[in-house]
Amino acid sequence: MFSRNMMPSTNCIVTNSIKKVKGKDFLSLRIVDLTQRPRLLASARARGDRLLTLDNLNPCIKAMEYAVRGPLVTRALEIEKELKQGTKNLFNEVIKANIGDSQAMRQTPITFVRQVMALVTYPELMKISIFPDDVKERAKLLLSGCGGESAGAYPLSPGNEFVCRHVAEYIEKRDGFPCDSKNIILCAGATEGIKQILKLLICETEGLKPAIMVPVPQYPLYSSTATEFGMRQVDYYLDESRGWALTTKELTRALNDAKGLCNPRALVVINPGNPTGQVLTKENIEEIINFAYEKGLILLADEVYQNNIYDKNSEFHSFKKVMMEMGPPYSEMELASFMSSSKGYTGECGFRGGYIEMINFEPEVKATFLKSIVAIHCSTLGQVAVDCVVKPPEPGQPSYELFIREKTAVLKSLAERAEMVANTFNSIEGMSCNAVQGAMYAFPQIYLPDKAIQIAGKQQISPDTYYALQLLENTGICIVPGSGFGQKEGTHHFRTTILPQHKKLKKMLQKFRTFHEEFLKKHK
Amino acid sequence: MFSRNMMPSTNCIVTNSIKKVKGKDFLSLRIVDLTQRPRLLASARARGDRLLTLDNLNPCIKAMEYAVRGPLVTRALEIEKELKQGTKNLFNEVIKANIGDSQAMRQTPITFVRQVMALVTYPELMKISIFPDDVKERAKLLLSGCGGESAGAYPLSPGNEFVCRHVAEYIEKRDGFPCDSKNIILCAGATEGIKQILKLLICETEGLKPAIMVPVPQYPLYSSTATEFGMRQVDYYLDESRGWALTTKELTRALNDAKGLCNPRALVVINPGNPTGQVLTKENIEEIINFAYEKGLILLADEVYQNNIYDKNSEFHSFKKVMMEMGPPYSEMELASFMSSSKGYTGECGFRGGYIEMINFEPEVKATFLKSIVAIHCSTLGQVAVDCVVKPPEPGQPSYELFIREKTAVLKSLAERAEMVANTFNSIEGMSCNAVQGAMYAFPQIYLPDKAIQIAGKQQISPDTYYALQLLENTGICIVPGSGFGQKEGTHHFRTTILPQHKKLKKMLQKFRTFHEEFLKKHK
Repeated sequence: MFSRNMMPSTNCIVTNSIKKVKGKDFLSLRIVDLTQRPRLLASARARGDRLLTLDNLNPCIKAMEYAVRGPLVTRALEIEKELKQGTKNLFNEVIKANIGDSQAMRQTPITFVRQVMALVTYPELMKISIFPDDVKERAKLLLSGCGGESAGAYPLSPGNEFVCRHVAEYIEKRDGFPCDSKNIILCAGATEGIKQILKLLICETEGLKPAIMVPVPQYPLYSSTATEFGMRQVDYYLDESRGWALTTKELTRALNDAKGLCNPRALVVINPGNPTGQVLTKENIEEIINFAYEKGLILLADEVYQNNIYDKNSEFHSFKKVMMEMGPPYSEMELASFMSSSKGYTGECGFRGGYIEMINFEPEVKATFLKSIVAIHCSTLGQVAVDCVVKPPEPGQPSYELFIREKTAVLKSLAERAEMVANTFNSIEGMSCNAVQGAMYAFPQIYLPDKAIQIAGKQQISPDTYYALQLLENTGICIVPGSGFGQKEGTHHFRTTILPQHKKLKKMLQKFRTFHEEFLKKHK
Repeated sequence: MFSRNMMPSTNCIVTNSIKKVKGKDFLSLRIVDLTQRPRLLASARARGDRLLTLDNLNPCIKAMEYAVRGPLVTRALEIEKELKQGTKNLFNEVIKANIGDSQAMRQTPITFVRQVMALVTYPELMKISIFPDDVKERAKLLLSGCGGESAGAYPLSPGNEFVCRHVAEYIEKRDGFPCDSKNIILCAGATEGIKQILKLLICETEGLKPAIMVPVPQYPLYSSTATEFGMRQVDYYLDESRGWALTTKELTRALNDAKGLCNPRALVVINPGNPTGQVLTKENIEEIINFAYEKGLILLADEVYQNNIYDKNSEFHSFKKVMMEMGPPYSEMELASFMSSSKGYTGECGFRGGYIEMINFEPEVKATFLKSIVAIHCSTLGQVAVDCVVKPPEPGQPSYELFIREKTAVLKSLAERAEMVANTFNSIEGMSCNAVQGAMYAFPQIYLPDKAIQIAGKQQISPDTYYALQLLENTGICIVPGSGFGQKEGTHHFRTTILPQHKKLKKMLQKFRTFHEEFLKKHK
């Protein structure tokens, strides 16, 4: 019934793929047999022979896929070169709507953030009058938390003590519940944090592989990490017809289907949703917490878009806050929450900052975790970026006015673009799109004609990949096919960001509309 | 015969450890049985129960050790707090000679590096006159290689194209052989690069676990990563009596002992040596290359200290250069070389920059590797740091004079300190130390009295850990016991950096001498 499913056996990995699949099946499915014995290389070898080949490298690495930067993006980069060389001239530029990379799409950085980072990097600049006093103070404080008071010293785990403290204060203010700064671990972006936490769960029990429950559609970091770690993935489907809601019924269905095949250990929830853009209601979160409690699942809350809420009727509720409000025994559950400086209104992806809050974890587990990441560092500036996100200028401080103006402008524009994207797609024949309540993406459904599906089948690619490739070749717009995130069998989607700046986005949507109409005509 | 050895069975991991070991054995050895089944957690659970415990978390993570930042460092941090609170007052400060962290020990950053980084971070500063033109040009060039010309865009793998090109030029100039910039992959420090390459090798063949050949003494990154990845480690011993030389005889001995127990796939060489400080001769490198060729081993050359050569009779020879000079078939071997911006004369550990050069790897393997690290980013500033290391100012450029003055000062001072450390240890009764030809460390042997060994045995710690703890408690000097790096059974060592600044180092060595003499007296 579903295109992405449980594993047929514990010795196989099933990954979704937008490359060719053996046989006639054009669905985005790939099975990797882990029992297959690679060729043992003799100790002596013939000249020119390679020691490391696809036959004997880590099978989990071989099986990894990461759709957001998959073959479509590779083709987009090629097209960019062709445009420069003049061998392609159907359009002027490639519009990269494939990735949540705000500043690559010309979002202006927040001045306060950059000033603090520049000062920490080159403290000689303290002498220059262009930096406001609060910037200087912040830089000095953060430097005093660095070894030798230098940004060049190793940033130790769990991180600069001032940054960890500021994160805890931010969480306390956000939730109204205490936060121990000792529960905060800084990481080089949420990606790194998520991978490190998932790594803890790799442990076979009674012959069953560990598994994580993952939403479908999902951000492919989870599937690719599960593949890399040889873990299993139990997919639960978000209900598109109800604004990508998450139901206990579906969670139960998924868990039941997994019984005996693997050992589900954690439940991943992405809120606000990626790629789906929904913001979970408090009631929905309560339901999920209750389910996780009943079933003995650790909660992993990917909350990196907590500052990206556009819908006036939606509000961000952290899993921690809801859990605490529910009281014991729920407030005693193990929960890891992930946050990043790459999203929100800062969009500082290039500085690689993020944090994990580890709530209610066994002290020995936390100590073991810290020991395991001791050689993995969040760069000094990644930590500074996090600091600026959790402790922005306050009213009365010299940087406040400019900061609030810049922040408001970014969020207002994102909200307008969120609305424009959903409205446009809903006005196009053969498309439907849920509201983009939060995050940075729309995930519209497209109704593809039979002829397009047949052509895709002949080309041994999924229909939405065929659609995305055609879009890219004809308009320069780069999106990600829905099969990269998972979708119900027989449905087709794509993910686009809402990040191109207003004028460019408008142009992009116009081109999109024209392309889609022509596509339908051509494949009638 | 040796304290760190092959694994007794493929289902066990042996790690060195400075914590308690069951039974009477006080050697730093720990065996983790991977077949032990952790307790399966029921889906429903009692209130307060923890889902993740030491019994059911990743056994490889549990087994990881990282001596450079182990329990001794934890105690050092505690002592720092005690000094602040006044509950400890035997000395004024903790001297962290445990880690190669130059700037934490007050090494001055190179102005050119910091200026370029500050400009890339906050390009508004272009307008200010304090930055020389070459700094501005470099920052502009690097920004033009970033998405949206912003440091805040995702830094894609393999890295900023200009940085990769500059790395290739640097290698060409260094070796006199061509370097394809497509073989360069930027990484968040060499640690990250080494881990990612080792990950590729995880593949069982004919029921045998993959293994890496690792020098002993070794930098514990290799042992801890092998443990994390469930790989085996084949130790080969460096010959202390011959200046930590590496012999084919010992390599052959190690490989023979491993026969049938695991599948050695790669040979790790650290040159200049960490913790041993030796610089390999060209002849020695030729021997090693020949051995790797004969035995079908991939070469992994950890060359992060290539710019830290102090001995006037020593010269850095890259493995690539020597391999190329040897010609076919050697010049066709797979070699990965690792470099970092955290070492050398820059010491920018906090910015997390490094690169891998992947030589002669199968194109599909390289493509798979790039795919696997697509979501792992070297921060923009990490890449900028690498750029400044491989392309420093040239004669005639505005920044050159200051740059060369700063660089020379750092390297001259390091060379003096290298000599001072070795000379001092050699002048102390019961210590002997090989010359510190390169890198940032000395690894002296200490001859411990029986009484000290007995006390350590009673405390269930290794004798060198006992020594290091006594040193820390009595003088505030933090070093790493030799057992953290591996050493021949019955010998005792420690690693100290040469990084405290001249005056402080001198004082440290005086304190060290006094402590050692008293230690010998006390344990007569």
